[in-house]
Amino acid sequence: MAKNWVYKTPGIPDELFNQNDAVPGPTKEEIRVVTISKARLCEGAIVIDVGCGTGGLTVEAALQVAPKGKVYAIDEDEAAIRLTTSNVEKFGVQNTVCITRSKAPEALLGLPNADACLIGGGGVSLRAIIQTANYKLKPNGRIVVNAILLETATIAIAELKTLGFKDIDITHISVAKGKQINSGTMMMARNPITIVSATKP
Amino acid sequence: MAKNWVYKTPGIPDELFNQNDAVPGPTKEEIRVVTISKARLCEGAIVIDVGCGTGGLTVEAALQVAPKGKVYAIDEDEAAIRLTTSNVEKFGVQNTVCITRSKAPEALLGLPNADACLIGGGGVSLRAIIQTANYKLKPNGRIVVNAILLETATIAIAELKTLGFKDIDITHISVAKGKQINSGTMMMARNPITIVSATKP
Amino acid sequence: MAKNWVYKTPGIPDELFNQNDAVPGPTKEEIRVVTISKARLCEGAIVIDVGCGTGGLTVEAALQVAPKGKVYAIDEDEAAIRLTTSNVEKFGVQNTVCITRSKAPEALLGLPNADACLIGGGGVSLRAIIQTANYKLKPNGRIVVNAILLETATIAIAELKTLGFKDIDITHISVAKGKQINSGTMMMARNPITIVSATKP
Amino acid sequence: MAKNWVYKTPGIPDELFNQNDAVPGPTKEEIRVVTISKARLCEGAIVIDVGCGTGGLTVEAALQVAPKGKVYAIDEDEAAIRLTTSNVEKFGVQNTVCITRSKAPEALLGLPNADACLIGGGGVSLRAIIQTANYKLKPNGRIVVNAILLETATIAIAELKTLGFKDIDITHISVAKGKQINSGTMMMARNPITIVSATKP
Repeated sequence: MAKNWVYKTPGIPDELFNQNDAVPGPTKEEIRVVTISKARLCEGAIVIDVGCGTGGLTVEAALQVAPKGKVYAIDEDEAAIRLTTSNVEKFGVQNTVCITRSKAPEALLGLPNADACLIGGGGVSLRAIIQTANYKLKPNGRIVVNAILLETATIAIAELKTLGFKDIDITHISVAKGKQINSGTMMMARNPITIVSATKP
Repeated sequence: MAKNWVYKTPGIPDELFNQNDAVPGPTKEEIRVVTISKARLCEGAIVIDVGCGTGGLTVEAALQVAPKGKVYAIDEDEAAIRLTTSNVEKFGVQNTVCITRSKAPEALLGLPNADACLIGGGGVSLRAIIQTANYKLKPNGRIVVNAILLETATIAIAELKTLGFKDIDITHISVAKGKQINSGTMMMARNPITIVSATKP
Repeated sequence: MAKNWVYKTPGIPDELFNQNDAVPGPTKEEIRVVTISKARLCEGAIVIDVGCGTGGLTVEAALQVAPKGKVYAIDEDEAAIRLTTSNVEKFGVQNTVCITRSKAPEALLGLPNADACLIGGGGVSLRAIIQTANYKLKPNGRIVVNAILLETATIAIAELKTLGFKDIDITHISVAKGKQINSGTMMMARNPITIVSATKP
Repeated sequence: MAKNWVYKTPGIPDELFNQNDAVPGPTKEEIRVVTISKARLCEGAIVIDVGCGTGGLTVEAALQVAPKGKVYAIDEDEAAIRLTTSNVEKFGVQNTVCITRSKAPEALLGLPNADACLIGGGGVSLRAIIQTANYKLKPNGRIVVNAILLETATIAIAELKTLGFKDIDITHISVAKGKQINSGTMMMARNPITIVSATKP
């Protein structure tokens, strides 16, 4: 049972999440665990998850900040909202998560100030989302952008520099998984991702 | 202060560890967090860290299993033992860690049964270390081998198959870090690592 | 027209080859060009291509050694033989290529001594294929093994060491290709490959 | 003797080039061979090498286009010019190469129209260099940009799109080399590179 996922460290196996072909994700296990690590969460923290998709990061963040913390998950896609809701219930973190169907960056304005903001992509609104996240983050709050596009990474870096963020960290990760076949271990690549993280001054 | 590292998720920045040119490590931040994730630790767990080196994994594991759990860190190199000791003190986990200078696999025989065993390399004794770890692991205990040699990965996979381990996971990770220079973001590669993990039947 | 591929350097775009879902390959463009480079071919060279599959390496090698050289392409799969034949004709190198449906390593015994031997995998017979290739290679001849399995790489390295090959080179390559989507450039990973090459003493 | 490098395919081993700590390069063997492949050179072709550095690409391109072709190598750094000159002489391609100490993009204006233009970086002038290369390239000429900075790749892609280049190819390559140590094969990573290539309309 997924509800029994009681390990302290993130890294829920991908296959334990409900999935849906119409919704990207979940962010793969190894990327999720590094992403959550870069957010530097404590129990009680307030987290905003922009573009929650399948809800993988939402659930992992919720398990880190529960019981007193809160994760605000937003996505403009209805299927994503339904899927995140089902995964939040599957892992029993519904008291820690608040899910809203809405569009970033506007949706961030109505949320409380946050300790961390996770941004999965962002498309054409990325600069505005980062600016709004900056406005919402508490001092020393953390921002983590997961970039699957080359341009997302460079725009995020440029914008975080402009806003004066500290300790900008750029981590490009390529993962290949071994698959057992008759003759041995075939390495199957996953798409690389660039994780850009920083601390609000 | 390193003692203030109170985030729930692993991923202590590399530069916070005391380091020594004569001792390899610490295992880089992103690899440490994935390694600890693969060990699936709970508070109270018993962990064996074979070849603790700088003590990076020792400290991270201790922060996950404290206050009731225990991490047994062993290394045959005296400089490694001194360095791990200094980092265990720096991060304030000395009550959770037991450090012994001794040689694997023999040293494992005297330790309590464990929930997880972390193996960093192992050289020519790798097969014997895995066999001894298997003997020491509780049912459903986790083994995690961090391979920087091609041969370490293939030997670990073969031995874990022979011993009937379940859910063998092979994760090859390449990380490149962005370094800001005048003209932009230069990507600096780190050596790839293959993390082999599995569950004892 | 594919026949017009008259560039001096290898690297024929993948999509110019006839392909067939039942046959693996062609070896991707960037891997093909590095593989052929490691074989260090001259006009007039004799090349053996073990496990020719789609014929990508066969055609590229033929373009390098023509008009006086020869490429002996072998595969035990009938569909692979037909596909290699069609690509050899498409690129107009039929006078330079000799295709045989047969099983390695036995098939190598009847071939002339070679300047280079390309081995794509090899499965359970890999050691025997390398040994036979060693027997067939001229002094200073080159062997190039393309490994998609972890075990293929380690077995090839061990066997080449045992046979006293010189200048053993191990090159692990991960390629990701950019795909233009509306919002930018998405990086799509290809499976990594380890190219093991060496010189016969 | 380096002059005896008579293989038809690029891929001269790195250690055969004269090197100088004050000059970056040579572009590593495997990257050089893919770069030259993307340039799709024929005997007789005219090539411009912008930022020749150690001269690795200059020499490889010269070997592909000789005896009738020409490679124009430019760099604004005097040490780079001296080093490229020494390598051009070492490999005996001085009749095919024309080396000029000058600054891009201005220096390109005085050169003949070209079949291929190789750009290694470019810094703040990258857009202007690509625009000038576009002006100098013959129809169906090839441009190849080797990006070690994240920003170089995204700027090159954007500029090539703006200029209407065809078949824009983005290839991110990570190479790790195996190093034999006592206990096995340690994989040593090299910095990743993104090769952006395209055809002038």
